[in-house]
Amino acid sequence: MAKRTITYADAGVDIGANARWVDTIRSSMSATFGPRVCNRHGSFAGMFRLDYEEILFRRNYRKPILVGCTDGVGTKVLLGISTGQLDGLGIDLVAMSINDLLTCGAEPLFFLDYLAVHKLDPAHLAVLVTGIAKGCEMSNCALLGGETAEMPAMYQKGHFDLAGFAVGVVEAHRQVDPARVSQGDIIIGLSSSGPHSNGYSLTRKLVSRRRLDRSMDELGESLADALMKPTRIYAEAVRQVMAHYRVKRVVTAMAHITGGGLPENVGRVLSPRLDAVIKTAAWSPPPIFAFLQSRGVDQDEMYRVFNMGIGYVLLVRPAFVSGVVRVLERAGEHPAIIGKIKRGRGKVILR
Amino acid sequence: MAKRTITYADAGVDIGANARWVDTIRSSMSATFGPRVCNRHGSFAGMFRLDYEEILFRRNYRKPILVGCTDGVGTKVLLGISTGQLDGLGIDLVAMSINDLLTCGAEPLFFLDYLAVHKLDPAHLAVLVTGIAKGCEMSNCALLGGETAEMPAMYQKGHFDLAGFAVGVVEAHRQVDPARVSQGDIIIGLSSSGPHSNGYSLTRKLVSRRRLDRSMDELGESLADALMKPTRIYAEAVRQVMAHYRVKRVVTAMAHITGGGLPENVGRVLSPRLDAVIKTAAWSPPPIFAFLQSRGVDQDEMYRVFNMGIGYVLLVRPAFVSGVVRVLERAGEHPAIIGKIKRGRGKVILR
Repeated sequence: MAKRTITYADAGVDIGANARWVDTIRSSMSATFGPRVCNRHGSFAGMFRLDYEEILFRRNYRKPILVGCTDGVGTKVLLGISTGQLDGLGIDLVAMSINDLLTCGAEPLFFLDYLAVHKLDPAHLAVLVTGIAKGCEMSNCALLGGETAEMPAMYQKGHFDLAGFAVGVVEAHRQVDPARVSQGDIIIGLSSSGPHSNGYSLTRKLVSRRRLDRSMDELGESLADALMKPTRIYAEAVRQVMAHYRVKRVVTAMAHITGGGLPENVGRVLSPRLDAVIKTAAWSPPPIFAFLQSRGVDQDEMYRVFNMGIGYVLLVRPAFVSGVVRVLERAGEHPAIIGKIKRGRGKVILR
Repeated sequence: MAKRTITYADAGVDIGANARWVDTIRSSMSATFGPRVCNRHGSFAGMFRLDYEEILFRRNYRKPILVGCTDGVGTKVLLGISTGQLDGLGIDLVAMSINDLLTCGAEPLFFLDYLAVHKLDPAHLAVLVTGIAKGCEMSNCALLGGETAEMPAMYQKGHFDLAGFAVGVVEAHRQVDPARVSQGDIIIGLSSSGPHSNGYSLTRKLVSRRRLDRSMDELGESLADALMKPTRIYAEAVRQVMAHYRVKRVVTAMAHITGGGLPENVGRVLSPRLDAVIKTAAWSPPPIFAFLQSRGVDQDEMYRVFNMGIGYVLLVRPAFVSGVVRVLERAGEHPAIIGKIKRGRGKVILR
């Protein structure tokens, strides 16, 4: 039913004994299937109807543009392994690609994962795939398929790596095109849950393993819990904004704040004649960032490595800011007006 | 221009010094772009027009079904590292997903890669990405984007892993549906170049590293050369067959022969009331398989682990076999009639 290929490096893996986990994986994949998934039993590929009604399809899409994104979770995987908190990593994986995909105004369609492991442990696999399926449900997209490769000679004992691929679609004339960004546009920030999936190579150097599980007053939770919070997925919020403004193109650009932080990622949507001026006092970063900074990282570096509490930004025409904020609030977000586009030289200025 | 994200685990990587390699990577990606790619500078996502002319699109696709596949190269990567032959691995990566995608009759559209490395070596990266771009050109699809993640704590020194993701499209009523396979259908096999990308965990146990580079009489080349031959891509051959029979549905099923060999992969397209009877005398496997078998693998195991010289099969209605064979020959293939569908119990019988 659900296509999921498992490549065994060696014979001797008793798939029968693992039937229970295979069922778990299958049912969590199937839970993401809408009427547009048309996978066939035993098929070599996952199949997805671009729209399930020809008339509906023609109404929505005259010049459909497909959007493709890929990303991994980086070394957050290693922290997940050492803390034993693997359930959020699947959401992280989906979030990294889906949030990228949203930035052009695309509707997420489907997702595929690649999971490479030292040794196949069906219980771990079920936790990871269930998390991926959960991320797909949060993104309103189908987990169309995946590949699990067992490679004991490549990965160390207990290690694994994850890669994700997302496909979406946007109608040509409705895509969000940063070429339209202009002076006066307002920057709305959506909060992150913490470092999301970036900066973990630095983070792992800053925190000692022994302190991970201890509850900490300044965090209100353990370091492990603060660091392993899943990446927020902004699909529903963005969908509601796009659906609310069907004709007017009020959103001029969006950015997913990942490695490189606000400076690099907001910088990607700026022309060489515009600056983005961001007031960092406009929001309060989750306490985990102050803790990490206190371990000896300077302020500029913090903003270059981490999202500092803003996971996603929308650039909006000034007249529509209060409307967009209302839509975002109804979608469950706590949007903050964090900055403005001014004449400049393509720089992101933090104040 | 071409979207390719590079995630650095640490600061200190001098991207300026590597500009030459970045240019190589960019130009090999751009070479795969047709008029349907509409990536924007700095974009978070790769963008692909489903068709670049609205009228053309509507003519070809009334109910488009998107097809998604993902796969890696398995432990062939490790043999590539130890032999220093990395240039074919990119083609292998593309082939693994694209050949899967072709089996439902889909036209390849675009490809994305995920490359995780111990340490970013731009020269190696350029070899790998150039190979991937070459594979995409052979598949007539665009290399729309990719992700390179540097993870020294995850991968051993000199190691890397590759994952690939392919998207294609097929018109609903033209898809190849194995439910149509019936008694009398003829099995046409297309030759492989060697083990392709499967069976390398076993292969690495069978061959000693010291013998890899020595030229061997029975192979007419070195073991390294025989084992590192890139996986054949059947996109052009399949495209020509599908284009030649636009109305008649003469191909009832196709299978990409990967891990599990002919028994498992041809088995995937059989209903429980049909057998596939394959005559192994109908073709000559490349000499590398006899060599591997001579290292102590029994015949059945060889056919379960390796493709044994047949990389792809088409099941064809008997009246059209000679026509399909002619089209395949014109496309540069050497097709062999290797078997037949008979009444049975869903088994693949090798004779």
